[in-house]
Amino acid sequence: MTVDVEIICIGNELLIGKIENTNAYWLAKQITAIGASVRRITVVQDIVEEIAASINEAVARKPQFIITTGGLGPTFDDKTFQGIAKALNQKLVVNADAFEMVKQKCIEWAEKRRMPAEIEMTPPRVKMAVFPENTEPITNPIGTAPGLQVHVEGVALFALPGVPREMEAIFTQTIVPLIKKSVGAGIFCELSIFIDDIFESRLAPLIDLVMDDNPDIYIKSHALRTERGLELHLTSFSDENKNCSGALEKAAKELTVLIKANGGVVYT
Amino acid sequence: MTVDVEIICIGNELLIGKIENTNAYWLAKQITAIGASVRRITVVQDIVEEIAASINEAVARKPQFIITTGGLGPTFDDKTFQGIAKALNQKLVVNADAFEMVKQKCIEWAEKRRMPAEIEMTPPRVKMAVFPENTEPITNPIGTAPGLQVHVEGVALFALPGVPREMEAIFTQTIVPLIKKSVGAGIFCELSIFIDDIFESRLAPLIDLVMDDNPDIYIKSHALRTERGLELHLTSFSDENKNCSGALEKAAKELTVLIKANGGVVYT
Repeated sequence: MTVDVEIICIGNELLIGKIENTNAYWLAKQITAIGASVRRITVVQDIVEEIAASINEAVARKPQFIITTGGLGPTFDDKTFQGIAKALNQKLVVNADAFEMVKQKCIEWAEKRRMPAEIEMTPPRVKMAVFPENTEPITNPIGTAPGLQVHVEGVALFALPGVPREMEAIFTQTIVPLIKKSVGAGIFCELSIFIDDIFESRLAPLIDLVMDDNPDIYIKSHALRTERGLELHLTSFSDENKNCSGALEKAAKELTVLIKANGGVVYT
Repeated sequence: MTVDVEIICIGNELLIGKIENTNAYWLAKQITAIGASVRRITVVQDIVEEIAASINEAVARKPQFIITTGGLGPTFDDKTFQGIAKALNQKLVVNADAFEMVKQKCIEWAEKRRMPAEIEMTPPRVKMAVFPENTEPITNPIGTAPGLQVHVEGVALFALPGVPREMEAIFTQTIVPLIKKSVGAGIFCELSIFIDDIFESRLAPLIDLVMDDNPDIYIKSHALRTERGLELHLTSFSDENKNCSGALEKAAKELTVLIKANGGVVYT
């Protein structure tokens, strides 16, 4: 059984094409590498109803984990906790633990810059500690805004900041061990071969043959930027006790023989 | 009234972190630049039910346009048309116009490579012409697989290939004129200022003040990769007859005055 994860990225900047969604890409790579499966990535605007809807929709699909990124900061457009509160039908209240986390960060910041007046807990700072009731803060080892964790209908929901280095730190520290525990002995492996001089449509039945012979392996063809040739990408989620990469190599050999027999060229 | 667009990207390669979603980023940038608003980006696996569900969900939100990318090729994992057929409750049939488009591409390909035997319309080639009933093909000026267009419950749905140069060509040639027509005189403009020495939480009420004074303008703060300072990004969708960039400059000046009065530094 695969461990399913959904990613929800919150931020207008991703929808106006200002910023590439490197967070989703990074998370997808990390989650896959530890043997879990990203089922869906959703990008929504900084609108409370949109955030709440995307969370409710994801919860209804019952993945084991939902990870949101963005919208945890002190400004008006940081609305993730409002969205989660709406989705969970919980009130927003100052979370005492989160308040202490934010306060500690502000003291550190003020001391570092020798600006003692800056330790005051202004309303925007308090805002970062305003959590939906019955949710828990997660320490942010890099930035000021704490993350959030909550269990909802059997799904573990995490809200992480949008700043990549903060998101990556919390993910690695807090979420990776939990996903690994769920995955157990499962692993992911991959292998690519590069081919040319065979039309993609002629290749399709050869891929079907090899996939039929290797039911645990998924093979996908990708056009290359060179405008010639194709990459065949073989992937498998498998039990650690099985020889995952050995199985990929066997399938790649079968493909190679078939492609050459049909006039194609194979580069490994 | 804004013209809303949703983007649905189809492909396991995006969910395992193999490939960055440059298609979504490129489309979001282009769509915004011509004055329309991307409301949501969804990335789903190569699974018919997932594709169909994501399309039905998007249609229910009633954007003016839905654009899908990926999954139009000849291989088994190209399932977009099956997903659209399921969403629209239509049968899959060989579309005569699409068949001619694919055939013509294969003849060109075979002639170019002097491989006359390659003109045959094999099943995988025919597959690229198997469309849901009551949908129309769109010429692909670069690659083999035609795009698809259909109107469903007042929404214009387009399916484009996943290969970036093919997707970009069809979008520019076929979809841009239609979005521009819907947008009418609307335009998008943006302006950034860069600031430092002011804590983001102290900045928040200043941004609120300026947004209250300039209701057409959206201001969002972004952390910079340098780990110091912030970018303030001012954006507006506005009528062509209004001075969009003039309004942004006015708001940026107001912000600058407030930030400096609060001890911050502003770089323009």
